[in-house]
Amino acid sequence: MPAPTPKTPLAVLGLGAMGGALARAWLAAGHPLTVWNRTPSRAEPFAAAGATVAASAAEAVAAAELVVVCLLDHASVEEALAGVDLAGRDLVDLTTTTPAEARAGAARAAERGARFLAGGVMAIPPMIGVPGAGGYVFYSGSRDVFDAHGDTLAVPAAGRYTGADAGFAALHDVALLSAMTGMFAGITHAFALVREEAIEPTAFAPLLAEWLTAMAPTAHRTAAQLVAGDYVSGVASTLTMQLAGAPTLLRTAAEQGVSPELLLPYLALMERRVAGGHGNESGTGLIDLLRG
Amino acid sequence: MPAPTPKTPLAVLGLGAMGGALARAWLAAGHPLTVWNRTPSRAEPFAAAGATVAASAAEAVAAAELVVVCLLDHASVEEALAGVDLAGRDLVDLTTTTPAEARAGAARAAERGARFLAGGVMAIPPMIGVPGAGGYVFYSGSRDVFDAHGDTLAVPAAGRYTGADAGFAALHDVALLSAMTGMFAGITHAFALVREEAIEPTAFAPLLAEWLTAMAPTAHRTAAQLVAGDYVSGVASTLTMQLAGAPTLLRTAAEQGVSPELLLPYLALMERRVAGGHGNESGTGLIDLLRG
Repeated sequence: MPAPTPKTPLAVLGLGAMGGALARAWLAAGHPLTVWNRTPSRAEPFAAAGATVAASAAEAVAAAELVVVCLLDHASVEEALAGVDLAGRDLVDLTTTTPAEARAGAARAAERGARFLAGGVMAIPPMIGVPGAGGYVFYSGSRDVFDAHGDTLAVPAAGRYTGADAGFAALHDVALLSAMTGMFAGITHAFALVREEAIEPTAFAPLLAEWLTAMAPTAHRTAAQLVAGDYVSGVASTLTMQLAGAPTLLRTAAEQGVSPELLLPYLALMERRVAGGHGNESGTGLIDLLRG
Repeated sequence: MPAPTPKTPLAVLGLGAMGGALARAWLAAGHPLTVWNRTPSRAEPFAAAGATVAASAAEAVAAAELVVVCLLDHASVEEALAGVDLAGRDLVDLTTTTPAEARAGAARAAERGARFLAGGVMAIPPMIGVPGAGGYVFYSGSRDVFDAHGDTLAVPAAGRYTGADAGFAALHDVALLSAMTGMFAGITHAFALVREEAIEPTAFAPLLAEWLTAMAPTAHRTAAQLVAGDYVSGVASTLTMQLAGAPTLLRTAAEQGVSPELLLPYLALMERRVAGGHGNESGTGLIDLLRG
């Protein structure tokens, strides 16, 4: 029987809902783990499960070449790492940040002799360490870190590298969450419309999910139009046609006693674009309008 | 060789983009067809393809037991059918309307001795008569009409019966289109975020489409919570947690020079619900909030 491959030791800074889930996944996979949390009591269950508890962030960073950070926000990371010797470390920051914050983190790491990989976790904690749950992590920054620690990083969730720009993981993360916010707004409005009718929510939901699933690939056409710089050719449903349907949406909301507040900004944006003489386009031009 | 089953004759009122596509599908399938359009010139290509052109709506209605109406809006239908003898007719109204307008149409038909079936077409004209294109029609109202003419109605697109209430087809139609509007708003914002970066839209689109497809089944959980009247039990991602991510969405938009206008109403709704003491819920409670 061959000896098992030794598992890469690592340190995890931050044992909140997400950091804790990550730490548990690495512990379960047999990685030697050092943990640190600002509130020490949160580290106790991890000590009981075999982790070494560091008394300070500096001590945790000193304990392993691979250091994973997952704190409340970027300011918490700056605070935790203030004055800590990062030289020779591979810093993987899975804290939720903006792209600019991730780039600042990368610059800070470079100044202090560390390699830096930023991550955006596309999962909620219960999906971490559960193969097949569908969660994954966007990474950006040092390709070398991503390649060197690929197996270890894949333990909590699959990784997807998005580019050398440290801000790209956060940008992908935020873009997808923003799109989801829009979809959730649409789902909320849809259920509100049927809420007081003799329509079973559980009969309506499959129709809704199926429809949104069928329409999600619209993103591919949008991308192709952006690349071509042509929002008009081959468009079967123009902005003018879509806008013609808006009064029916709004009058139905009024009939059903549902506030149209979640729909109004997109309808207003369509109106502005059509008023600007772009009624023969698809909705792709709204992207330009949103950038002012 | 057995004689071919005779195809049901029908009349189509309205030869706009959708009405014309419907008429072409029935012509192509060999149905004897009478057409009428307010602007007679639009009927000419249909005459050339074998349709009988009626000089008036009344003449078209008199020509067939099954009468399909697809006009600009409910007012156009009222106008076209004013004074027309509808007795004994099966009226299928595929005009885009609100639920209340569909119910008014059903009442009008009942008064005048016609059976009434309302439809909401979930397709754009190029999908009509194309098997596998994924389009379909929501129907509501007379189940007898739906059953009697099922084969004929299935020629342009598959039918889905939603209930005896004539307004339900429109309600389902509008609910799905409203949800799509929200999703399109989200997609627009997401592309705007990555627009000026070295991120290929065609590389980003598959990630976006995949994410939205993965999140669309959230509708099932929402439905189950509505049925149970319990928005709290087993919620892994609470409103408080979701709202904690809002500043990152907004600051990222600001960094990327993107107006947050499409996201703000949903974030504001979350804020109101959390302020109301419901931070431990999922987003399902926002549905109640939207109804005032």
